Amino acid sequence: MRDFSSDHRWLSINTATVRKQRGQDWPLPQILDACAARGIRAVSPWRDQVAAAGLEQTARQVKALDLELSGYCRGGMFTYTDAAQQQAARDDNRRALDEACALNAACLVLVVGGLPGASSGKPAHRDIASARAQVTEGIAALLDDARARRMPLAIEPLHPMYAADRACINTLEQALDVCDLLDPQRNGGLGVAVDAYHVWWDPKLQQQIARAGRERLLALHVCDWLVPTADLLTDRGMMGDGVIDLKALRAAVEAQGFDGYSEVEIFSATNWWQRDGGEVLDTCIERHQRCV
Amino acid sequence: MRDFSSDHRWLSINTATVRKQRGQDWPLPQILDACAARGIRAVSPWRDQVAAAGLEQTARQVKALDLELSGYCRGGMFTYTDAAQQQAARDDNRRALDEACALNAACLVLVVGGLPGASSGKPAHRDIASARAQVTEGIAALLDDARARRMPLAIEPLHPMYAADRACINTLEQALDVCDLLDPQRNGGLGVAVDAYHVWWDPKLQQQIARAGRERLLALHVCDWLVPTADLLTDRGMMGDGVIDLKALRAAVEAQGFDGYSEVEIFSATNWWQRDGGEVLDTCIERHQRCV
Repeated sequence: MRDFSSDHRWLSINTATVRKQRGQDWPLPQILDACAARGIRAVSPWRDQVAAAGLEQTARQVKALDLELSGYCRGGMFTYTDAAQQQAARDDNRRALDEACALNAACLVLVVGGLPGASSGKPAHRDIASARAQVTEGIAALLDDARARRMPLAIEPLHPMYAADRACINTLEQALDVCDLLDPQRNGGLGVAVDAYHVWWDPKLQQQIARAGRERLLALHVCDWLVPTADLLTDRGMMGDGVIDLKALRAAVEAQGFDGYSEVEIFSATNWWQRDGGEVLDTCIERHQRCV
Repeated sequence: MRDFSSDHRWLSINTATVRKQRGQDWPLPQILDACAARGIRAVSPWRDQVAAAGLEQTARQVKALDLELSGYCRGGMFTYTDAAQQQAARDDNRRALDEACALNAACLVLVVGGLPGASSGKPAHRDIASARAQVTEGIAALLDDARARRMPLAIEPLHPMYAADRACINTLEQALDVCDLLDPQRNGGLGVAVDAYHVWWDPKLQQQIARAGRERLLALHVCDWLVPTADLLTDRGMMGDGVIDLKALRAAVEAQGFDGYSEVEIFSATNWWQRDGGEVLDTCIERHQRCV
């Protein structure tokens, strides 16, 4: 297992972590500058942040600052109720793929979508099995393009509390079943993003990380699970403030040969998004050295 | 599959559903009277409610009203950090067993506990595997007494969002693994409580219900998952108001031969607990006929 205690060379910042400072949007160009100024070598930006800053400008800035992208957030949201929605999802995922390539991301992270309509509070039906079938079909369709572009797709299983409205792939086992179905040869173009927040509770976590192996382990995301958790969406904790054994998780993925960045992704509406962004980045660095 | 549409003979009320009315505690004796007055034949009371009303008085009232107990809520909370805590948990579970027997419950439901200390906001450690080992050990120790008393133990897997602070058994598969370990002969004294709220998201739900079979399916709990869900603990929905396919779940358990009560268990701090208790019971009856 790599020694993270003396530097932060393997720290990546998912820019959602500091998308706000003092409760206000912190523009991506400033976030990137602040990361680079601290010797942070990698980031994972969100599409809406990139769109606001401009794709070309962001690509130029990333290159000028010598930043890598540990991933790009995100494609997915494959579920639909009619052909127009299906096509719109396909088109949007093609654009996400283009952007990931333009930014030279290590992978395109896929948050696959839940029951159609549920994210806006109006689920079209209760048939999660059909949503799951649509997700598999959507990934299959995107995979051909992604392979042609040499952009790996990282399926991110989301915590089961998001099954209805964000992602109906909810365990690592389920994500790996999709990988095995669509990529039985393990050619490296399809894998998983392992986010501690989403998978820490899983009694089969160690087993499924071993099953994934190096080819399928495309990204590692870290934060912490707070006790109690006040909000389902925006109450993620800073590493060390919660109950996740992050070192054990990293040991498991590194035992498979994973040697990529460890990406800090925290959504914290009432705590970290209320603070100074630079202070948050400094805390990420310190906690990453001590707790991950 | 049984026809629930024309009567509510297979409806049970978990008394947490109406533990408050208009925001105030509704005493158990009044709840039991209100259930019986509506032809509800079964309930599942909580220990604190029984303690407040008195065990003997409750047993007498249950008998006088000809009510059955579809289960008794609850034993469990097996995890500990020292021998004194371990012994306290054992003693408390023995008392829960005594009470379940005194009330002639169909089973004692086990909510197994999370990381020790976490339910009071102070988790003693991050080693969920050790908590799980303590749970298995605690159930094993209780099982001997439960068998002698002929009181089935129903392990209730809780939603993964409760893994830290309420129950570290979080999938039906995991609960059945414990059953198979402790009761390889399937003698009927150990099984699971399948609560729709906790398991609806699981991609292996149908498979694991089939694995459970009739001997292990000791209880069926129903409510609904709301989109969005405002609170991790007290925002469960009334059947029909959310995204769970309750009929499909019931079909799956009945396909295994389950023919017991369907128990409505809703915690709803801002909605149902604010209403008139009788109105809530009437709604449970109507929704149970239409949506379960």
